Amino acid sequence: MATVVSLEGKRKVPGLEPLLALCADDMARVDREILARMRSPVALIPELAQHLVSAGGKRLRPLLTVAAARLCGYPADDDRHIRLATCVEFIHSATLLHDDVVDVSVLRRGKPTANSVWGDKASVLVGDFLFTRAFELMVDVGALDILGVLSRASSTIAEGEVLQLVTQRDISTPEATYLEVIKAKTARLFAASAEVGAMVAGRNGAERVALESFGMNLGIAFQLVDDALDYAGREAQLGKSIGDDFREGKITLPVILAFLRGGAVDREFWKRTIQALDQQPADLARAQCLMERHNAVGDTFERARHYGAMARDALGLFGDSALKDALLEAVDFAIDRAH
Amino acid sequence: MATVVSLEGKRKVPGLEPLLALCADDMARVDREILARMRSPVALIPELAQHLVSAGGKRLRPLLTVAAARLCGYPADDDRHIRLATCVEFIHSATLLHDDVVDVSVLRRGKPTANSVWGDKASVLVGDFLFTRAFELMVDVGALDILGVLSRASSTIAEGEVLQLVTQRDISTPEATYLEVIKAKTARLFAASAEVGAMVAGRNGAERVALESFGMNLGIAFQLVDDALDYAGREAQLGKSIGDDFREGKITLPVILAFLRGGAVDREFWKRTIQALDQQPADLARAQCLMERHNAVGDTFERARHYGAMARDALGLFGDSALKDALLEAVDFAIDRAH
Repeated sequence: MATVVSLEGKRKVPGLEPLLALCADDMARVDREILARMRSPVALIPELAQHLVSAGGKRLRPLLTVAAARLCGYPADDDRHIRLATCVEFIHSATLLHDDVVDVSVLRRGKPTANSVWGDKASVLVGDFLFTRAFELMVDVGALDILGVLSRASSTIAEGEVLQLVTQRDISTPEATYLEVIKAKTARLFAASAEVGAMVAGRNGAERVALESFGMNLGIAFQLVDDALDYAGREAQLGKSIGDDFREGKITLPVILAFLRGGAVDREFWKRTIQALDQQPADLARAQCLMERHNAVGDTFERARHYGAMARDALGLFGDSALKDALLEAVDFAIDRAH
Repeated sequence: MATVVSLEGKRKVPGLEPLLALCADDMARVDREILARMRSPVALIPELAQHLVSAGGKRLRPLLTVAAARLCGYPADDDRHIRLATCVEFIHSATLLHDDVVDVSVLRRGKPTANSVWGDKASVLVGDFLFTRAFELMVDVGALDILGVLSRASSTIAEGEVLQLVTQRDISTPEATYLEVIKAKTARLFAASAEVGAMVAGRNGAERVALESFGMNLGIAFQLVDDALDYAGREAQLGKSIGDDFREGKITLPVILAFLRGGAVDREFWKRTIQALDQQPADLARAQCLMERHNAVGDTFERARHYGAMARDALGLFGDSALKDALLEAVDFAIDRAH
């Protein structure tokens, strides 16, 4: 039972710390494995990859893998879960590198993106390298069923990226399509990260299904909150600038809801700013004002809470433990962060 | 014995036709598998992939896979070699898509490149999709040892691409480094394509080693000839313009040899044109003239013949057959094409 109510009845701010503390040994091993596996005689590869991997990300995906494996009783002296965790981080890093090229991003987590430092070419090619290195790692682990899960997840991510590119700046994108995109782009890898943790521990029945569902719902909630925070968060805490999505004309749920709920004048505004990318300095403030009026950001958080609730319930079949509590708190953190 | 001397003693022009004819059924199945596997609800994916796959490439890599499998007695009614052949074509296609983005290429085999039609973003993402789809296919085939070979080959290609990017326009690149790059970028996938053909047929001993060596040496020869033809070929036959590599400042063996063999004035010319990319209209003709003087193109062909000879000898342990003759003729074709 993860409770976010402290003894004094005062609401405690949920955090990732308990999960990170319980998985500290494993995550230190993941760090070492990451450094070992990005070695290459071609110096640019570790240099660029290190920039990305050490950029202060939360390493949520590998954390899910090792936590899921431990929750399923994976033995402490084995290390296949470490390699799988490294593998999901590499897949994630590869997609980040390519994403930043495609989105022409200059900042990620408050630091210059790899493409802004080394150029697009290097980012594309080192991304490819990390992708293929991830597959080498999976093959090392030697389990075909796990390879199947991770290769299908990678393929889904790539398909989702193309889908997002195609639907980009189409203001009439339905919420269902947006959900498909974030499931494919973000949640699928969360799901696979947790699922392979169960698999490597030999729990291929209900626990595997439960952890996949946990990861999927957590991933959806996580992305919804990310998209909400782009209009509502505080810059310093986010490590990215507010309004990035707006300036890039990204179709996220806050925009979709504000468009659907707005009248003709509002819709003209969204068409001009998001679809035609014809923006004036005051437009971001107006966008936030329209979202406020229609509770578009608030309801995006509300949707996130729905998926968060499903993630929490997915863990119901596991017995009480500090690790389970920490995973439940991680769900709350995903939703409440930077609030 | 593949003879390239016809009965009248007149030199016959070697071709790929005998190999294509012997593998026609398999290659038709590969075509169908390619189309089936690039299906996606995201229309841009099959559209862009089809543009590339149907661009009239020779499909040398999948041809190597099915031919190697058949040479090793792979049963006619099985189809894992078809999936592996599709897989190597997808890996190759993915790298082409990313290569053309990195090289800012507008033409490939005489047709507009995907990036010039759909843009860099689509090419990067559909390339990722093909990569991941290739891994899904491998997992389908279900052999971990084959997965190991293909994932290591993919990783080597990616590493080679980065190495090429780093050494790009460094006029003092040694021949050894150039060889490393073309082994990694081109020959490794040729080698893996042939090797997995032996593996899927269950020939993991000398035949596997022989076919890997055949593919590796054929791949090196193939790339050397490609690089020579960029200064010596005829535009219509190549389907690409003469001098592309020169205009891009690519360090290929003809340039390396001309630089090493030239005096101070020559070296200034190569530094200006290739390293600083400061080119005048007449510079390509002068480059060709300097290469002629030092026999740089001729000796690049000579190097290719050396690797071709090794490729031919690698097949020595296989008994005589029409298929073996056709593979030997393919080596001659790789060297003599467009001459």
